[in-house]
Amino acid sequence: MVRALLTDEGSRRAAATDRSGHRPATLPDAVVRATTVEEVVETLRWATASRTPVVPRGAGTGLAGGSSARAGEVVLDLSGMDRIVAVRPDDQVAVVEPGVLTADLDAAAGEHGLFYAPDPASAAISSIGGNIATNAGGLRCAKYGVTREAVLGLDLVLADGRRVTTGRQTVKGVAGYDLTGLVVGSEGTLAVVVGATLRLRPRPAATATLAAHFDGLVAAAAASAALTAAGLQPSVQELVDAAGLEAVDAARGTALRSRGAALLLVQCDGHGARTEIDAVAGVLAPFATSWRATADPMEAEELLAARRAVLPALERTGDVFIEDVAVPRSQLAAAVAGVQAISARTGVRIATVAHAGDGNLHPVVVVERGTPVTEGAPWEAACAVFDLALALGGTLTGEHGVGLLKRTWLHRELGEDSLALQRGIKAVFDPLGILNPGKGI
Amino acid sequence: MVRALLTDEGSRRAAATDRSGHRPATLPDAVVRATTVEEVVETLRWATASRTPVVPRGAGTGLAGGSSARAGEVVLDLSGMDRIVAVRPDDQVAVVEPGVLTADLDAAAGEHGLFYAPDPASAAISSIGGNIATNAGGLRCAKYGVTREAVLGLDLVLADGRRVTTGRQTVKGVAGYDLTGLVVGSEGTLAVVVGATLRLRPRPAATATLAAHFDGLVAAAAASAALTAAGLQPSVQELVDAAGLEAVDAARGTALRSRGAALLLVQCDGHGARTEIDAVAGVLAPFATSWRATADPMEAEELLAARRAVLPALERTGDVFIEDVAVPRSQLAAAVAGVQAISARTGVRIATVAHAGDGNLHPVVVVERGTPVTEGAPWEAACAVFDLALALGGTLTGEHGVGLLKRTWLHRELGEDSLALQRGIKAVFDPLGILNPGKGI
Repeated sequence: MVRALLTDEGSRRAAATDRSGHRPATLPDAVVRATTVEEVVETLRWATASRTPVVPRGAGTGLAGGSSARAGEVVLDLSGMDRIVAVRPDDQVAVVEPGVLTADLDAAAGEHGLFYAPDPASAAISSIGGNIATNAGGLRCAKYGVTREAVLGLDLVLADGRRVTTGRQTVKGVAGYDLTGLVVGSEGTLAVVVGATLRLRPRPAATATLAAHFDGLVAAAAASAALTAAGLQPSVQELVDAAGLEAVDAARGTALRSRGAALLLVQCDGHGARTEIDAVAGVLAPFATSWRATADPMEAEELLAARRAVLPALERTGDVFIEDVAVPRSQLAAAVAGVQAISARTGVRIATVAHAGDGNLHPVVVVERGTPVTEGAPWEAACAVFDLALALGGTLTGEHGVGLLKRTWLHRELGEDSLALQRGIKAVFDPLGILNPGKGI
Repeated sequence: MVRALLTDEGSRRAAATDRSGHRPATLPDAVVRATTVEEVVETLRWATASRTPVVPRGAGTGLAGGSSARAGEVVLDLSGMDRIVAVRPDDQVAVVEPGVLTADLDAAAGEHGLFYAPDPASAAISSIGGNIATNAGGLRCAKYGVTREAVLGLDLVLADGRRVTTGRQTVKGVAGYDLTGLVVGSEGTLAVVVGATLRLRPRPAATATLAAHFDGLVAAAAASAALTAAGLQPSVQELVDAAGLEAVDAARGTALRSRGAALLLVQCDGHGARTEIDAVAGVLAPFATSWRATADPMEAEELLAARRAVLPALERTGDVFIEDVAVPRSQLAAAVAGVQAISARTGVRIATVAHAGDGNLHPVVVVERGTPVTEGAPWEAACAVFDLALALGGTLTGEHGVGLLKRTWLHRELGEDSLALQRGIKAVFDPLGILNPGKGI
């Protein structure tokens, strides 16, 4: 018997939505706090028998409404399954339960000289299970890949309670279809992840970091393109626009905006980190108003702090909706300019940070506190950004997922035949539609 | 109308099998040599209407019987669709037709200072379409990933002739289920790939290479494990055993075997290549009988030539069956020792090369010319290797695919529930079972 079945209003309210800004009109019927695989199995058997929809939930830090739940649904909270089962340095592999926080895994890997490559900005508060559900990315992905590339195998519970293992413990493997990669990014709609075998990598021998300021976003994007053209491959390449810099200055008492209207933060790693950052500086200098490089980790943290502070700083000034479009990297300049034009045209405040190395933009729509962000003018501005991304050959979501909020847009990106295949796959895994209905595809 | 429909015995015989050593008892009914997407569409519409099984075929270099065809089946030869449609250096992306040879793509990328990371030993003769079908690996995968990580999007024709596009042009993207990754490695059983958008990477600024000789495989495997423990990440780490070295010596007049019973070739790349190879030398030296490092590309090619020569050298001495098991890297020593024990016990000659960095072994079963390799004692030895890999927590196939030959083993690795899901997916894509029946899952 599942011990932690919660039906009080506080628990149901706490489990009703995520950090997307979406406000569900009703609350889920109950919350199951599972701490063992057996409890997950039991919950799903009961759900199948009673035809009750189940919304799997990790740390609740999603940004697309993927774990929103409503009346008639039961939330399956996996945050209590938070054991790091094993870190095997000889295999460069970790085995974890889904509720482990991403930063905690990275720290455990660090004790063995290893790291976990995907590093969503939410790493300190988001769980591996949620990272797997959304195929989370982060800052280092252009060099080291996204969550899908870091997941070697999964332990799943299907909607009917059957347990299935996918994947393997090896870096290579091609026995059967890639069910692991299929479940990664499926937003809890195909199966419940109760365990994951993850790839770790050796911590870089060294890092070197550079901050460059530019007159405007066009110059910064041109500088980023020049890095690509020069064949340099930083591990981090983060762009912050003027609106982002102004928010950080207001929150931290810095004067970043005075140095230019755009900031590009670049980090190189590996045995040649210093040599490569010198090459980066040589390429960026002609575009920049000023720049500073360092191989000192403390000083590097200081430079990167500006990037980390953007979202908290914006959240101090209002409610936010964080978009997540990605474009081919040659379209980065067009994308950031397009977002600024949308902001100017609609009068909706939008600050943009971007993972410049992989063309992944996070335009942050900021509204007065208490204003709904998923309707009216703010949502229309967000939709204009979706339109822009698709027009530039990009995608609606680079790393946050489709969830509830981008679902109506999905057919525009994927087309009907592709969606039909995806619905067919959903029916193979979950013929009764028990798992996270109305999310993802 | 499809112009190139071939029914002569020569064409049918040439398209009946691959390089696996499998000998089909009958020949396919016909071969369609498609040169346009429209011809593929037309062929599959006809096949669906007439319920004729179709075997997609690239360059025919497969090693698992994945493109073997027999009476009642029609081969769809895509080797004539061999255009490199675009190389877009600003996006680090290439768009290609499936018949492009992997080495030709890499050369085209090289003109822009880029490279295509997956580098199967067959790169000069195998096609991208075949690489996608088997999720091909190669030497550089431990650092740069396998084919699945290099494929951003696919143009597909379904069994009924419908065209579907999957994926995107961006590094990140999580709109919908990962149909791209599902088709990669599906061995032509889900759809026919008629186009691919591939990720390119900047060519490393420098490389440095080291060859180390060891008394035996145990010492070489221990040295490789020590590299892992030291947090070094070579781009190439190739192991050759005594039987392989003897064959190379006989073919090339070298004296590699006299320097030790095992050879480990290591390459590092990037801005810190020289520094890293020095660190590699420091770690390997205590285990090695001798070693030599170089940063000169010509001299490096000379060192790597020994590895490239192993298979051709073995093929001079008999017919071969190339196995492809992968084990967790901590099990590398146990795996190579186990293969040698199987060879000693069965009297079947087996030489082993291994991608040591990712635990992917290629034990090469060598028989007298004309002896069938997929039956009798050679096959029993091969099956003992499969057994060994599974017992060590590994997989039947790291990068060659299941094809025809490993199919009976698949349930052992995957289990019945996983296979049932995979059959369900197959039915979603190809409900009539038109595409490559009897292969893969």
